[in-house]
Amino acid sequence: MTAELRSQLPIRRWSSLSAQERYTALRRPAQRNTQALHEQVREIIQEVRSRGDHALVDYARRFDGVELTTLEVTPAEFAAAQTSLDAVQRQALERAIANVRRFHEAQRAEPIRLEISPGVTCEREFRPIDAVGLYVPAGVAPLPSTAIMLAVPALIAGCPTRIICTPPRKDGSADPAVLTVARLCGIERVFKLGGAQAIAAMAYGTASVPKVDKVYGPGNAWVTAAKLLVANDPDGAALDLPAGPSEVLVIADEQAHPEFVAADLLAQTEHSADAQSVLVTTSMALAQATLEQLAAQMPRLERERTLREAIQNTRLFLVDSLQDAFDLSNTYAPEHLIIQIAAARAWVPQVRNAGSVFLGAWTPETMGDYCSGTNHVLPTYGFARAYSGLGLGDFLKRITIQELTADGLRDLGPTALTIAHMEGLGAHANAVQVRLAYLATVLPDGVRAAARPDTPLRGSEGA
Amino acid sequence: MTAELRSQLPIRRWSSLSAQERYTALRRPAQRNTQALHEQVREIIQEVRSRGDHALVDYARRFDGVELTTLEVTPAEFAAAQTSLDAVQRQALERAIANVRRFHEAQRAEPIRLEISPGVTCEREFRPIDAVGLYVPAGVAPLPSTAIMLAVPALIAGCPTRIICTPPRKDGSADPAVLTVARLCGIERVFKLGGAQAIAAMAYGTASVPKVDKVYGPGNAWVTAAKLLVANDPDGAALDLPAGPSEVLVIADEQAHPEFVAADLLAQTEHSADAQSVLVTTSMALAQATLEQLAAQMPRLERERTLREAIQNTRLFLVDSLQDAFDLSNTYAPEHLIIQIAAARAWVPQVRNAGSVFLGAWTPETMGDYCSGTNHVLPTYGFARAYSGLGLGDFLKRITIQELTADGLRDLGPTALTIAHMEGLGAHANAVQVRLAYLATVLPDGVRAAARPDTPLRGSEGA
Repeated sequence: MTAELRSQLPIRRWSSLSAQERYTALRRPAQRNTQALHEQVREIIQEVRSRGDHALVDYARRFDGVELTTLEVTPAEFAAAQTSLDAVQRQALERAIANVRRFHEAQRAEPIRLEISPGVTCEREFRPIDAVGLYVPAGVAPLPSTAIMLAVPALIAGCPTRIICTPPRKDGSADPAVLTVARLCGIERVFKLGGAQAIAAMAYGTASVPKVDKVYGPGNAWVTAAKLLVANDPDGAALDLPAGPSEVLVIADEQAHPEFVAADLLAQTEHSADAQSVLVTTSMALAQATLEQLAAQMPRLERERTLREAIQNTRLFLVDSLQDAFDLSNTYAPEHLIIQIAAARAWVPQVRNAGSVFLGAWTPETMGDYCSGTNHVLPTYGFARAYSGLGLGDFLKRITIQELTADGLRDLGPTALTIAHMEGLGAHANAVQVRLAYLATVLPDGVRAAARPDTPLRGSEGA
Repeated sequence: MTAELRSQLPIRRWSSLSAQERYTALRRPAQRNTQALHEQVREIIQEVRSRGDHALVDYARRFDGVELTTLEVTPAEFAAAQTSLDAVQRQALERAIANVRRFHEAQRAEPIRLEISPGVTCEREFRPIDAVGLYVPAGVAPLPSTAIMLAVPALIAGCPTRIICTPPRKDGSADPAVLTVARLCGIERVFKLGGAQAIAAMAYGTASVPKVDKVYGPGNAWVTAAKLLVANDPDGAALDLPAGPSEVLVIADEQAHPEFVAADLLAQTEHSADAQSVLVTTSMALAQATLEQLAAQMPRLERERTLREAIQNTRLFLVDSLQDAFDLSNTYAPEHLIIQIAAARAWVPQVRNAGSVFLGAWTPETMGDYCSGTNHVLPTYGFARAYSGLGLGDFLKRITIQELTADGLRDLGPTALTIAHMEGLGAHANAVQVRLAYLATVLPDGVRAAARPDTPLRGSEGA
């Protein structure tokens, strides 16, 4: 077993790889994102737009193998869900919600109000996005934890319309844990819809499903393609983050526990056949011990089959220094970065590109996935170079506001005039000019010098 | 003239329109976003990726009509630019930069550090995006104001690599005002590149142009299509905002100055043939007087030809109440919202969807476009329902960090175990379980009960 793994997973010395070899070694597993897939998804979206709920019922039959009589979860189903969880399960969800809530409430930002110069005020205020659609996938099993990560910030943001779509189970019901989370997070409307058709329903609305302004949540290749397509359409809906297969990078030194490192790599690996786990270590002994632990732990895990498939994406790198390790990590830009080195905390400033960071021996990624308080919807597939994980701000819009007094315009107006003329935009200049000309005809106390009783001088300051 | 405009621009009573008529009346001008355009842009991107700088020189010849010997602006060009602006122009740019800088510096957010429960710490820190590419268009004339809006937040964020692409002028030089802004904002590298080819060069890099992680800035249909395409490619670059033609909505009551309202509508209208201006007023007299002002002001404006074309997109609505006006505005979700009513300030909380808001008689949109301090890169084409205007945060990533102590894991670990099992993710549970099992073998003071000298107990807290 170890021998087999050892041949599958060579420990590569980073310093001996050429630039091209490094590039290749850090390539993510190929993503299913073909033109053909996009065409299929485009057709699904078109069907949902033209046939609405009828198309949704048809797709549920075809893709989920269920005959849905209602798309929306009924009060009876909600009630049944409440009783189907045991006390330990319910308490675990409640504690996770409480922690995620605390961390996301801490992300509230104050409005800004700044007098830029006398009579020129600029402000920034927040508004919740009116309608948000939360997609809770159910690949292996339904994911109540994803419902938590989406529903909690939407609740804190105060988005007036918050709905969940989640694929129906084989018996046509929705997962009771997801329904329990929905209720605990104040979400009244849950639809038993999965895949691209769920995204289309939320982006455009149907008789049953309200149209939303933005869709959130991870999903498979169909869901991802649908999110991109509806986001590119002004009549569709925005998306939270581009998504790809999930990944972890573990930086470990000779003091790390190989048992823990291997367990963390495997936790990521079990997600799907295209998930990727990367170990970067300064210690050959740790790398070898981790390989042994991988071999030892894999057979006792329930998703062994997925593990055996996805382990082929695992990469093991030996680096000369921790600086090399962090450089490699920043190049790879992992969704999850686990740092199991003696001085983990001291190296945090070196992390430039990563979704979420897990420090030390006692912080497995699992904790962030479920209940530490951070969000588990994170930029995958290298998107951490430019994107951030989901947070409260993703459920809000920032609106800027400016207000000038007559004196403020007198003072700053000429600056705008100059730049407008530099840009050849005469009507932009004119909008300032007509006001300055008007102000030139009035005395400073607001009394007009030239009589023009039909247009009294009046600013929003009530002059 | 007024008669002609009056027939072109009917004043429509909102309350008398059916739902379908309202929907049609608020439709934006059609966007050039065809499959054919996408195919052209896809080809340009492919050419730039495969032929690099050679393709860029070819496209400059073909699209810009210039023969470029160097793509990058030289120190001599920078020096010449400094001297070609007069003192008034330079001071105007400096003042605009100072104002934009102040408002964007006020957007800095503090890191978060929160002890969620004993031994469980969650944090959020900010990191600048490593490399940003700023696109400064030059449709009518080059836009130094756009250079300000992009370069200032990139500077404050501290993005290590900041480059500008801007289309070359007919003589092959770059606009001196844009170069002056670049220098004032600490940008060393400017490339004379426009259109889709500029976006491709920044997203993938060429021998001359460094690859960036995210591209910013408005542009024409080719630029917009290129940004979407590279953003959908994990090897490409993220984009700031989806873009469409620019627009303004003015809410005015009977006390507004028709002269100012008309000037504001025209300032927006001059942008391009597909720009749109919307007036929503509670006063028929104001609507009619605005029409007269439109007719009076148009002939004296330099971009009259564009105005005559784009004025066809202008919409005039008469509403029964200010509440109706704000409802209409929130449905339209304007990029710019100008509020010229007696109690403008009091109505701000009613604004749910808008990019930037201008309050009162003395705050023409022009001021925000150039120098009030707010950013003028804003969500257009209805995207204000889900997106915000550009700000400091768009140049930063938010990274979350968590750290558990051994006791923290002992306490919270079982919660994660429960949820992992609910989701059928055994390897996730295992990563917690191996640690809890390990901790069960050690005494509370960190001394191991069971001898296993090869793996000392060690968390990042240095236990």
